[in-house]
Order: sequence, then structure tokens, then C-alpha cells
Amino acid sequence: MTLGIGLLGCGTVGGALATLVAHQPDLALRSVAVRSATKARAAAISSDLLTTDAQSVVNRDDVDIVVEVIGGIEPAKSLIISALKAGKPVVTANKELISNCGAELLKVADEAGVDLLFEAAVAGAIPIVRALRASLSGEDISRITGIVNGTTNYILTRMTEEGATYSAALSEAQRLGYAERDPTADVEGFDAGAKAAIMASIAFNADVVAGDVYHEGISSITAADIDFARRLGHQIKLLAIAEKFLDDGKQSVGVRVHPAMVPNSHPLASVRDSFNAVFVEGAACGELMFYGRGAGGAPTASAVLGDVLEASAALRQGGHRPLTMGPRVPIKPIDDLPSAFYVNLEVTDSAGVLAQVAGALGQNGVSIRTMEQHDLHDLHDVQHGEDGGTARLVFITHAAPERNLRKTLTAFKGMDVVRGVGSVLRVIGP
Amino acid sequence: MTLGIGLLGCGTVGGALATLVAHQPDLALRSVAVRSATKARAAAISSDLLTTDAQSVVNRDDVDIVVEVIGGIEPAKSLIISALKAGKPVVTANKELISNCGAELLKVADEAGVDLLFEAAVAGAIPIVRALRASLSGEDISRITGIVNGTTNYILTRMTEEGATYSAALSEAQRLGYAERDPTADVEGFDAGAKAAIMASIAFNADVVAGDVYHEGISSITAADIDFARRLGHQIKLLAIAEKFLDDGKQSVGVRVHPAMVPNSHPLASVRDSFNAVFVEGAACGELMFYGRGAGGAPTASAVLGDVLEASAALRQGGHRPLTMGPRVPIKPIDDLPSAFYVNLEVTDSAGVLAQVAGALGQNGVSIRTMEQHDLHDLHDVQHGEDGGTARLVFITHAAPERNLRKTLTAFKGMDVVRGVGSVLRVIGP
Repeated sequence: MTLGIGLLGCGTVGGALATLVAHQPDLALRSVAVRSATKARAAAISSDLLTTDAQSVVNRDDVDIVVEVIGGIEPAKSLIISALKAGKPVVTANKELISNCGAELLKVADEAGVDLLFEAAVAGAIPIVRALRASLSGEDISRITGIVNGTTNYILTRMTEEGATYSAALSEAQRLGYAERDPTADVEGFDAGAKAAIMASIAFNADVVAGDVYHEGISSITAADIDFARRLGHQIKLLAIAEKFLDDGKQSVGVRVHPAMVPNSHPLASVRDSFNAVFVEGAACGELMFYGRGAGGAPTASAVLGDVLEASAALRQGGHRPLTMGPRVPIKPIDDLPSAFYVNLEVTDSAGVLAQVAGALGQNGVSIRTMEQHDLHDLHDVQHGEDGGTARLVFITHAAPERNLRKTLTAFKGMDVVRGVGSVLRVIGP
Repeated sequence: MTLGIGLLGCGTVGGALATLVAHQPDLALRSVAVRSATKARAAAISSDLLTTDAQSVVNRDDVDIVVEVIGGIEPAKSLIISALKAGKPVVTANKELISNCGAELLKVADEAGVDLLFEAAVAGAIPIVRALRASLSGEDISRITGIVNGTTNYILTRMTEEGATYSAALSEAQRLGYAERDPTADVEGFDAGAKAAIMASIAFNADVVAGDVYHEGISSITAADIDFARRLGHQIKLLAIAEKFLDDGKQSVGVRVHPAMVPNSHPLASVRDSFNAVFVEGAACGELMFYGRGAGGAPTASAVLGDVLEASAALRQGGHRPLTMGPRVPIKPIDDLPSAFYVNLEVTDSAGVLAQVAGALGQNGVSIRTMEQHDLHDLHDVQHGEDGGTARLVFITHAAPERNLRKTLTAFKGMDVVRGVGSVLRVIGP
């Protein structure tokens, strides 16, 4: 039994998918919705398949499975709902839609008894969605830490390996097509945030949306930060972190995207260039990592194809496997989320400075980890400035709520002996 | 609807699974087959569940899903067939059984219309089996390269990071419980070979069995090999490699386990200690890697639980998803399998030696890669021996069939200028 595929959208991913579908003996591409019916397409798409009427693709009797690669909320959302209600499984690569309306759409799919699958919405070819919803569905997952934006990882890799400035590395990424002309969605962490929300929803069986995610981007990372990180045995990466908390039996979730220092011994530290990786920590499974191509036509189409074949199996063998995202859950504000921090201070090179700095930390409930690991000579890294009287204090703290660190920084700024607060970066554990 | 679990075998994995099942609201452990009903068990296993009659566990009306963690071929095989024929899905962690009888057992499962699942048979908690049979089922996979034996990876890590000898590292692994008293199955590559056969079967839809796998172990790896590898920017790892070949339209498969030099830039190079990882190369997905705990009670039980929940969904929602291993396929003999090689020769320190060595390589169709990358000074690494007239030639070849390399080594041994052929190690690409 050949199953018919209706394709909504035909950019890079849609074109690559058409080529893959042509090699599958039991699938046939029936119709492709496009904005322009005259633009050149992949060889696997004959021009008589093209239509500008997307709803007609959904409606066709010979379309059994609908694939949505238009992106954005509308018209994608209405088309998907229409397909699901007609009993047609839907496969989508649309992270914006799933991270905003995933729970609602999964409810529609479940009521219709058909699949809504979205492996390609998170980390391209990496099968992290299926791993979370199938292999790890019984696992008590405590945290997911991902490098899920290839553009920013490429930029940070260039800065690390070639000493490039942020703007030079961004320009190179744009020249190579890894970054958009307006790079905001990537470099400010919105893209990674959408993926973090989707992963949190599945891992914690909760309805977490894009708007729940705190984000900071990489545009303020300097070559000096990269250099300090390297000297401390770390790499700077843009991380998407989803965590589950249990306080007095009440569950909450923290979801955030920000740059962080990753120790070289951590598996995420060696994820270079535009590669993605997702690191999962669970009570029984321990540490798992999934690594691969997070973007690009063929890798994303590979993930779509895996979902199409799952939807095909459900149509052929029956037995819909419902997936839900669970209820809304309290989202821990960034101020309450614990992190270790790297802090770089310019201080006067005089006796008693360290005691004052340590006092401010202690009063705000922040303890220093590097004092336990390095002797005073290492910690008190004196760099005589032009005035001959400035020293640099660099330390890494133990994990503390962001609120405590912010109070500490405010205290530092009010101290005579502190001439300037330099970079502050979160640090993840080994 | 609570589903009843019958557990065959109750060692480390069985005990850990019982604990996980106790936390699943819709699962209940009904009966546990053990060899000794008096031995102490995990707290989650009450003594009235224990029986020494394994067949009675399969037969119980209140057992809906059978989990087999006995290991070995019999009685596991007969019990599994009996369960499947009774319409009960089976989850097993038994790599020996699946790598020898997987195709036969999957046929029985398919005829009975129930699941036979074995995620835990390969690489513990890492969901590589589900990735291959679901996410990547439409992917054209060319090669799988895995570090799938934690014992040997632990030993090689100790040798690399502490300069330990093989025997000292093995003793430490035995002391820590990472290696058996008789370590043969691990250190000679039999365990990894079984996993390679299973991965090859699923990835290439072919019936590949443990006996098809060529293997060499790590017991002959010396501290000097590790040191040379490091100087060349490589790590030595025990790799399980499954490859698909297409010669004149005829498909064949190569499956092998042997130590190899892995360049530091390769994601497998940073897999340390007892961790496992599987690196997958496919036409559309590109490079993927799956990393995690390959052994131990809780990680293995985590994989078993994922399969139990999949089997539960199939029982509840219906719609068995058949998995087959395809037909027997020609297995390429090791002599025909291509590898790059690292070769270490002791030669007389005289003019014309390099020409003779290069001549022997050329005559046998082996070309040198390092000659293209290093100048003669680097390549001709003179180490004056006690007699003052011995030099050491170290080179890495381009990929060539093993047969060609073996002929070359025979030619070297017949040459007056070659005083000794030292280590020869395969090298995988960057």
C-alpha cells in the first residue's frame, strides 16, 4: 500500500524531503503547496505537483500524511488542525509553532486519534524528541543541557579556535550561509529557547512554551572572555538548559538559554562548528548525549522522514500512540535558578581586598569554588595596569541562585577597592 | 489498566528494573524467576514473587509482558519463544541470544503479532536500537562505528591518562568490578562483536550474526602504542565497525572489532572511562553520535523500562510494529575491508631505506598519507639505538584493503634494511 504525502512548503527542507521520499518504495509525493508555482524546484518535484492552494493539499483524497515545513504560526497552525481533524497524521519541522501551541495541537491530534510528530523541530537530524518520548518516557529526567543552535556554536568555535572577534565570526557565518542577514533569532537565543521549551515539555510532561524561557545571547561575548575561559580549562557555549525542581513536593521547571563556560572534560565541550548536541541527565540512565547536525536541508529532512515512516506504520498497522505535553507547570524565574558563576573583577592592588570581596560574597550566600582548588597565587592574578595599582581577581563560585549573585555584584560595585566588574559568566559542572 | 510484568532472571539488571517498575503507576511486577529462591534481593522484590520455575512465570495469566535478563542462549531462547507464541511481548537485554538468533526470534514475534524488543542488548542506556529501527529506518546508513564495551574503554583510558600498562589497568578494572575475573569476552572483543552484529542487522536490514564479526582485542596494546598515538594526535579505542558496501550493485556488509587510532578531533576520541558511544554515518542525516552508560544495573534497566513501556503501549493501543532483520547478506572477509594503517618500522639508518620501504608499499597498492602531511624530518624519526645504526619509520597510510597491507608487511619482513616491524594499528578518519 503506497501512502500519499502532501507537502506544505518547499524550501531547503521540503526539497530535500522530496528527494528522500522518491527513494521510499511505499511513499509517493502527491502535492506540494508553494508560494510561487514558477520558482525552480528540486528534481524530485515535478512542476505539476505544485499548487499555491495549501488547503487543497490537505484536502486531497490521495494525501494520507501531511508534512508542514512552512514555518511560523499561521497559516501553518490552521492547516495542521484541518489535517488532523480530517484524520490525517501531520509531521512538522516547525519549532515556533510547537513551542507556542504544542499542547493544543497534540490535544487535537489525540482527539482525532492520529499522530502529530515533530522530531525535526529540535536539533535537526538528532533523534532527541523520539528518545525523550519513547526510550526515556519512564525515566526520571532531572536536566537537559543542549547546544541546539548551530549558528552560535559556529561563531563561538571561530572565536575560540582562531581568536576571531564576535563581529568577524558573525560575518563569516553570514557569508557561509550559517547565519541570517538579521541574526537576532539565533544570536540572542530565541531559536534555542523554542527548542528548550519543546524538550522541557516532553521530558517533564508539562506544557512549557517559548515565552517561559529566559534568554541571553552571545553578542556580548568578547575575545577576552574566550581567552579567560580557555585559561581556566573551559569552552564558552550557548546552552539551552531545562531543569526540573521539587521543592516541598511541588514540581517546577526552569528553562533558560545563555552562554556558559563548559569544562573541557564535559562531553558538550568538544561539540564544534555548527554541530548540535543534547546532554540528558536521568536518575536511572545516568548521562546521555545525542550529537549531530542540527540544521540544513538533508539532516532536517532525515528527521522528517523518520516521522513520516512512523506515521505510515500507524496508518498501516493501526494503534495510535498518543503524546501529550501535560498541564502548565510553575516556571521558576531566572532569579531563583542556581548556577555557578565565573566573575572577573578589577580591584586595587592592596592588602585586605580579598577579605572584602570574600565578605560580600559570604553575606549574599555565594561561596567560592576556586579558593578550594587554586592557591592564592593563582587566584590573585595580579596584572599591573598603567597606574601600577590595579589587580585582577578571577574566581568561580559554587552554585547559587542568580538573585544572590546579582546582589553580590551590586555590593562589589559599591566597594572602593573594586574598580570594575568585568565579565560574569555562568559555569556548568564537570 | 495495570499490566503485569514477569521477570526471568534477577541479577543486577533485574533488581534495578524491579525498582523502576515499582515507580510506574501502570505496571506491576507479578513473578520473578531465579536460580536460588533464598538469596537476598532488591527491596522492590518481595520474596513471595520468587520462583525457580521460569516457565511458570511465562505461563501466568497475570503476566502480560515478559522481561528476560538471564543471558545466554538456553533456557532464555525457549522461554522467549514460549512467551511470544502465547502472545506476550518480550523485552530482553540478551546480546548473545539476539546476535545469534535475532532474525529467528523476530520472525516468531512477527507471526505472533507481538513485540520482541532488545534496546538493552546494545550499549546499555543509549537508545541506539530504537534510533536505528525508528528514527533512521528510512536513512541510507553507510557505517556505524561504536565504542560499545565499557571495560576495554576504561582500560585504554587508564593506559592513556596514567601511562598504566595493560595488565595494571586490567587489574584495576577487575578490582573496581568493571572487568570479570575471566576478562576474555570483553578484552578480546567478543562482547563488542555481538553488539556490532545486532547494530549491523538493524541498520542494514540484514541477518548478521556474531559469528560474522572479525575481532581483535586490546591485550597486545602497549604503553608505547598509546604514546605514539598521542604524539600523532590520536587516541587508541576498541571500535566495533559495521559497514555497508555496494560493488557492481551487489550489497555486502563488513563487521569487525579491533583497536584503532582515532584522531582527537573525532567525537569518539573524547569518550572516556567506561562510557560507550555509537557514531552513525548516513546519507541524509550526516554524522550522528549517541553517548552514555553502556553497562551497569540502573542504565541497562532504564533501557529495558523504555522497551517495556513501548510494549505496554502496543498492548493498550494495539498496532504491533513489526521489526525484521532481513535476509542473510554476503559478509566481506577482513582481507577485503579497507582501513588506513599506522605502521611502525625499525630500519637501518642508511641512505635509500625510505625508497625501498615506499617501493614495497607502492607495489602492494598502499599509499602513504603522512608523506603528504609531514616533511621528511618528521617522518624519518631517527632514534639511535644501542648499535647506533637503527632508525624508526612511522607512517600512516591511506585506506587500503587489509590484504594489501598484509602483503606489504610480508615484503618488509623480507627486506634487509627492515630490522623489525613494530606495531601496526588501524586508523579511522577525522
